[in-house]
Amino acid sequence: MVVVMQPQATEEQKEHVRETIHTLDCKSRDIQGDAITIICVIGNTLALTPEQFEILPGVDQVQRIQKPFKLVSREVQPHKTSFKVGDVTIGGNEITIISGPCSVESREQFRTAALAVKASGARIVRGGAFKPRTSPYSFQGLGEEGLKIMAEISEEIGLPTISEVMEPEMVPMVSEYIDILQIGARNMQNYPLLNAIGHSHRPAMLKRGLSATIEEMLLAAEYILTGGNHNVILCERGIRTFETWTRNTLDISAVPVLQKATHLPVFIDPSHGTGYADYVAPVSRAAVAVGADGLMIEMHPTPERALSDGEQSLTPEALSALIPELRRVARAVNRVIV
Amino acid sequence: MVVVMQPQATEEQKEHVRETIHTLDCKSRDIQGDAITIICVIGNTLALTPEQFEILPGVDQVQRIQKPFKLVSREVQPHKTSFKVGDVTIGGNEITIISGPCSVESREQFRTAALAVKASGARIVRGGAFKPRTSPYSFQGLGEEGLKIMAEISEEIGLPTISEVMEPEMVPMVSEYIDILQIGARNMQNYPLLNAIGHSHRPAMLKRGLSATIEEMLLAAEYILTGGNHNVILCERGIRTFETWTRNTLDISAVPVLQKATHLPVFIDPSHGTGYADYVAPVSRAAVAVGADGLMIEMHPTPERALSDGEQSLTPEALSALIPELRRVARAVNRVIV
Amino acid sequence: MVVVMQPQATEEQKEHVRETIHTLDCKSRDIQGDAITIICVIGNTLALTPEQFEILPGVDQVQRIQKPFKLVSREVQPHKTSFKVGDVTIGGNEITIISGPCSVESREQFRTAALAVKASGARIVRGGAFKPRTSPYSFQGLGEEGLKIMAEISEEIGLPTISEVMEPEMVPMVSEYIDILQIGARNMQNYPLLNAIGHSHRPAMLKRGLSATIEEMLLAAEYILTGGNHNVILCERGIRTFETWTRNTLDISAVPVLQKATHLPVFIDPSHGTGYADYVAPVSRAAVAVGADGLMIEMHPTPERALSDGEQSLTPEALSALIPELRRVARAVNRVIV
Amino acid sequence: MVVVMQPQATEEQKEHVRETIHTLDCKSRDIQGDAITIICVIGNTLALTPEQFEILPGVDQVQRIQKPFKLVSREVQPHKTSFKVGDVTIGGNEITIISGPCSVESREQFRTAALAVKASGARIVRGGAFKPRTSPYSFQGLGEEGLKIMAEISEEIGLPTISEVMEPEMVPMVSEYIDILQIGARNMQNYPLLNAIGHSHRPAMLKRGLSATIEEMLLAAEYILTGGNHNVILCERGIRTFETWTRNTLDISAVPVLQKATHLPVFIDPSHGTGYADYVAPVSRAAVAVGADGLMIEMHPTPERALSDGEQSLTPEALSALIPELRRVARAVNRVIV
Repeated sequence: MVVVMQPQATEEQKEHVRETIHTLDCKSRDIQGDAITIICVIGNTLALTPEQFEILPGVDQVQRIQKPFKLVSREVQPHKTSFKVGDVTIGGNEITIISGPCSVESREQFRTAALAVKASGARIVRGGAFKPRTSPYSFQGLGEEGLKIMAEISEEIGLPTISEVMEPEMVPMVSEYIDILQIGARNMQNYPLLNAIGHSHRPAMLKRGLSATIEEMLLAAEYILTGGNHNVILCERGIRTFETWTRNTLDISAVPVLQKATHLPVFIDPSHGTGYADYVAPVSRAAVAVGADGLMIEMHPTPERALSDGEQSLTPEALSALIPELRRVARAVNRVIV
Repeated sequence: MVVVMQPQATEEQKEHVRETIHTLDCKSRDIQGDAITIICVIGNTLALTPEQFEILPGVDQVQRIQKPFKLVSREVQPHKTSFKVGDVTIGGNEITIISGPCSVESREQFRTAALAVKASGARIVRGGAFKPRTSPYSFQGLGEEGLKIMAEISEEIGLPTISEVMEPEMVPMVSEYIDILQIGARNMQNYPLLNAIGHSHRPAMLKRGLSATIEEMLLAAEYILTGGNHNVILCERGIRTFETWTRNTLDISAVPVLQKATHLPVFIDPSHGTGYADYVAPVSRAAVAVGADGLMIEMHPTPERALSDGEQSLTPEALSALIPELRRVARAVNRVIV
Repeated sequence: MVVVMQPQATEEQKEHVRETIHTLDCKSRDIQGDAITIICVIGNTLALTPEQFEILPGVDQVQRIQKPFKLVSREVQPHKTSFKVGDVTIGGNEITIISGPCSVESREQFRTAALAVKASGARIVRGGAFKPRTSPYSFQGLGEEGLKIMAEISEEIGLPTISEVMEPEMVPMVSEYIDILQIGARNMQNYPLLNAIGHSHRPAMLKRGLSATIEEMLLAAEYILTGGNHNVILCERGIRTFETWTRNTLDISAVPVLQKATHLPVFIDPSHGTGYADYVAPVSRAAVAVGADGLMIEMHPTPERALSDGEQSLTPEALSALIPELRRVARAVNRVIV
Repeated sequence: MVVVMQPQATEEQKEHVRETIHTLDCKSRDIQGDAITIICVIGNTLALTPEQFEILPGVDQVQRIQKPFKLVSREVQPHKTSFKVGDVTIGGNEITIISGPCSVESREQFRTAALAVKASGARIVRGGAFKPRTSPYSFQGLGEEGLKIMAEISEEIGLPTISEVMEPEMVPMVSEYIDILQIGARNMQNYPLLNAIGHSHRPAMLKRGLSATIEEMLLAAEYILTGGNHNVILCERGIRTFETWTRNTLDISAVPVLQKATHLPVFIDPSHGTGYADYVAPVSRAAVAVGADGLMIEMHPTPERALSDGEQSLTPEALSALIPELRRVARAVNRVIV
């Protein structure tokens, strides 16, 4: 950390900064510029915040140098994290396609969807049982009944499952039925939930918050890893901007940016990222080309009758047509879609 | 809701839209423009979403007309909500000042702070026992011990308290110790938590999410009111923008915008809204002048030793100097600060 | 346009709205809902703004139905615009690669760069002679001298050129030397400049403003087309968001969104879109996969000595390695890079 | 500037950084941390950019320490800039109220407006003759004819005027008629225009761009001051965010933030800042309370017939009612409105 003193800072104020640094078990080192003094903080600054120094008298600004995360960092683990869910390897050379409906609406609807997912060549089936909805008047999901349906159909057709958990207390229950625990965008900084999932044995997918920076996303993942759970997928799903012609603005650069900073696999959700089925195919191709390790694509047997997110769901036919296209792009960038 | 058909939409597609409307217990009405047909949805559209119609073949766009909330709306309750916490009336002509430290750090620290709050003339004391922190390596709060300290000091000096709840399961426990339950910005759309607080007997303060629209904030409040709890304070605390010279961008207009739409009291948090103690006084004056029903201001006995948010905390002296200034502004706009 | 009256609007207020509509040469049509009246505006609403009606007494809100642009719209011209610059066809099945340095710094620097562009297989060479720089203390470009250098080297090696124009008065002069006139992001809504370029015989590239919506970008292009110049390229180059780990946030979905709305060719600038050379290759692959009609990639013979934008410039070697990769992705999506 | 080397940077790479620093006439100084080396750049870094160093091999990140502006800075001029326009002092203890219509529509309309401005107690009259409009189909202003009308009425009633200039070539002509030259939000980074106004003898008002940071705004002002024109007003007028219930999000904190950084007077435009007449009064009160040096408020004799911005214009009656309210708030914060 670098503490920049004001030009008129007194020697007493500088000494106070140095003492504060020493109190925190770090060493201080001065740089005398033409007009100002900079005091560097040397040592483990992971638990320190710039704000602790900004408040000291005579301080002009404080710049963080060391990254504020550790376990998720490429510096700590240079090789990419990879793990198996059923017989699907996540984080390898294969690009993993997850698909399925936004919500589990009934046994029949989910079974039809899951069969279409399997037929399309996608490897994991998604479905929501507990749905975070902006309005209290919208469909809130089938709850545990939905999870049971997912577990049964998964068993029947042989695809692993992913579903969202909304509260820490629900982690054990959801873990009984579901293979990958999803943390939704609105819960990216729900720390009790992150802690609970950090102590779970199930892999997790962490979706980027609507206005979360990449640094905050990595710190949220760090919460999970500090709990002992290292099987974490990061998922870019669009951020909130001023643009209204798409539901969110998909941050495609987040993939190479994250892959440079962390060893965790990085997925893209083109459905929430755009909000409209029309744009899912081109953006999915882009996601494969940019180097994403996987995609999560919403699909519904009859999108127009979907109880949630119908407008961004592909039909089974559209999904089946898309995957061969993605395979071609994957080959062009030396990746594989099975 | 207004469903705009594409210019080339067929009669069959229009009929399909009308039938879908009727299935949802609404009536349809056509408007024939020069080039396009608009089909209006008449009836209770509260539980409908534009997306349900956007997905139908031949539809170009859908515009919502009816507001998606009800209980929080001025149309349902024209008079302003007002309620008492101890002997403090919230939502009346008096502007309520809440102050205190970001975190409860020790009995001594909180007692010193609470006495300074009382001496300054502020009416309610704040303090955090469960702290949502971006980094897992930062101080996470004293937990229940912190709540106990708050309850004891509150009893001793006679000021009501406010503190944050982070999980639905903790609502009963926190309610035992604390007078007003705070929902933090990161939890504005934590629906299990909103539901739990909706069933609590304690008043709640709902802070605006970092990237939450005003409409989403009202829908989050609607969750609490549908549970039966009508004593809800809305708190603007800054939104996330591209500007980096302040921690957040305080949306001052949110006060009159909210006050036009809802009967709930609207507060401002100038500390998180700006992020730096230097800017708290001018922005607090603006908050009073714009018509806020209350302010929540962070204060710490020794900001430079604070375990969180020191850089945005006033000293006891600064708080004591600020309140008489706010009183003068309040008088100028025909409001009162006791 | 759809004018929604307040529930308590009087018959007199409604009549006033209808009269206003008739004054503007449009017809009105009422829809009577359960609680509210909607008055539709039928006719040519292109020159009307919702604000004209929002101001009328008794009006609650106004929704625009008709898109506010015409000449750029797919409805007016269903087939894609395509035109030739030298022997390069823009807007066809071929994806056009533009490359070159941010600034023309000297004859030698630009010649070296242009030769590397040609060798790499890119088809058009870029260079800046008039540079809009955030700081008055930064290098501002060589001015007309830079344009002369570009024209000579272009002649010598046989590649068409593109360069930025910053003022309406400079359009004729720049047009003498340069093949495609670029309107920079900061000038997307510089209307005198758009008008001047609308009357030019040179094709233009319009870069998206840092905080411009897609609708505003199309309206800016509409200014150029209303002047008579129909050869306009739209270029997505990243928008401003809260994210700081990239210089801008590239809005990859803008490509299919624009291609659905307009017949104009859509390019991507991955250099400004990301801000760092490391991310240019993956994002360029994504741009090809998403369906962009062209790319503009910054390249400098010696990026570390560049007078501007060095950190986002590829080396000649990196550009030469990238283009074959892009060719493979192009083939995978049935496009061609020559 | 502080250059942070990568942990694995070689001594050769460090030496290359030091040499580059020396080439730029600065001195280098090393700090050896536990894992990384930091190289400080000492000397005049005003014309340097972090990007020049980020591109060097072995560099991890670069942090700017010195502010990138000089003439606008409080460090260079500690006392506040103040100047006279007619008999109005700008930048003193008086808060200057500017009002008038968005556009000059006719002699009669502007005269009525200007008389109402004078009657209300406001000190300067505004009006637009050249209007930057998002759509080419909207009213674009009366041009020079509008300026003539403004000059005549100004002469008649004795109020100074302000009006927007859109092109550098128009600066001399507009200067003949108008007292203060306004640079609109869309032109905040129109550098040829800033340069031209920098060489003008008329005071200027620089409006903040829709997505301009405070630092960029100060750099834009720096362009004007480097030209020799030191009479510059900065005007916060709302920034673009995701919120759609207001036209822009007024950044109220920008006032104290700017006043700390610069000696230039800071105004607020509550009309563009909110977009709706209903919110203008409360936000104007906030602007006075926060310490703004002036306000610019849109007013139209008959807002519903305005050719632009009617929905955000006050009536003459509303303006006359507002100014006494603002006077009371001004007194409460020890300022004066005449």
